[in-house]
Amino acid sequence: MKRAVILLSGGLDSATCLAIAKAEGFECFTLGFDYGQRHKHEIECAKNLSPNHKIITIPNFGGSALVDNKIEVPKSGVTTEIPVTYVPARNIIFLSFALGYAEVVGASDIFIGVNALDYSGYPDCRPDFINAFQNMANLGTKAGGFKINTPLINLTKAEIIALGTKLGVDYSLTTSCYDPIGLDACGKCDACRLRLKGFAESGLKDPINYTAY
Amino acid sequence: MKRAVILLSGGLDSATCLAIAKAEGFECFTLGFDYGQRHKHEIECAKNLSPNHKIITIPNFGGSALVDNKIEVPKSGVTTEIPVTYVPARNIIFLSFALGYAEVVGASDIFIGVNALDYSGYPDCRPDFINAFQNMANLGTKAGGFKINTPLINLTKAEIIALGTKLGVDYSLTTSCYDPIGLDACGKCDACRLRLKGFAESGLKDPINYTAY
Repeated sequence: MKRAVILLSGGLDSATCLAIAKAEGFECFTLGFDYGQRHKHEIECAKNLSPNHKIITIPNFGGSALVDNKIEVPKSGVTTEIPVTYVPARNIIFLSFALGYAEVVGASDIFIGVNALDYSGYPDCRPDFINAFQNMANLGTKAGGFKINTPLINLTKAEIIALGTKLGVDYSLTTSCYDPIGLDACGKCDACRLRLKGFAESGLKDPINYTAY
Repeated sequence: MKRAVILLSGGLDSATCLAIAKAEGFECFTLGFDYGQRHKHEIECAKNLSPNHKIITIPNFGGSALVDNKIEVPKSGVTTEIPVTYVPARNIIFLSFALGYAEVVGASDIFIGVNALDYSGYPDCRPDFINAFQNMANLGTKAGGFKINTPLINLTKAEIIALGTKLGVDYSLTTSCYDPIGLDACGKCDACRLRLKGFAESGLKDPINYTAY
């Protein structure tokens, strides 16, 4: 059975990514991070999605609304700029650990649920970046031959939700909100807006709770 | 004053790298890791070399003699194979954190003391890997424009020691041994052999202690 390391945050995209990797026949090793994110609730979601989930605690250097309570999470809508929720080098650090884990467990494949359509404009979600990471990874490791799989990269959020639903993903176990109120999603941050738009376009009902303003 | 992040392990190479970055006029932010290495003593050395040294604790996934006491550190001499002291994705993870730190403190430059001549054959020390990392880093970050500096890459160990001595590096504060006995170097592992060869060729005396067999 081929092995794969799946970056699993507990969000909608990575949960779908895990389901795709399983459907492709991979034995899946899921990996997530406690990096001081506001939405730490996602870690509990990831554990519920994957019983053998591995969590790595890493420090953050600040510089992002997702880890610094002094910087507000924008709530006015998705823009074309890279937002203040960008976390410096986040996916680079995540993929680097995934690579180390993959090399140790003998996995050839890494899955990451990045998306270049309904996304917030983060540079570490673009296809060019992923290709460059794969190239670097294969030059810098003993094992080599790694493939970074990004099955969601060209799908809309609605298409991701439709595919995940077909594969049996229970989206009630996932979270997306950057700034939850208790366990409820805020409904106003970029992540909530993209998720809600995706469910609306897919014609499906989002099973998670949103806070009542 | 231009800022740089310096990967500082506490070893001979990274100590020299720090001195070079300072000589080039950079304000230096040093970064090191506790990754479960046998030679944890190097962390104390790094602190002595740089008062504001930042240390990040990260888990290791095993798979290397440097972090797994069940795997013996080879003592019979440097070979042409990648040795069991290779740590999966180590420099990739280190450089990724350096990149995040650099982006947050506004540093454009990262220094890493990799060497492609008197080295152990690690894939994550090769020029091709470093170039690929820099390319990936500039595609995957908001700031972009990062330069990965490898001032030692084409120097012999003897040349590194001569240069560092000229720049005032106190090599008594450094360590290299993979498998120290107390605070004494073993004198037999690859790192000790390369260091001793370098000092011998440079005509200088190594100020650290080696264990008496």
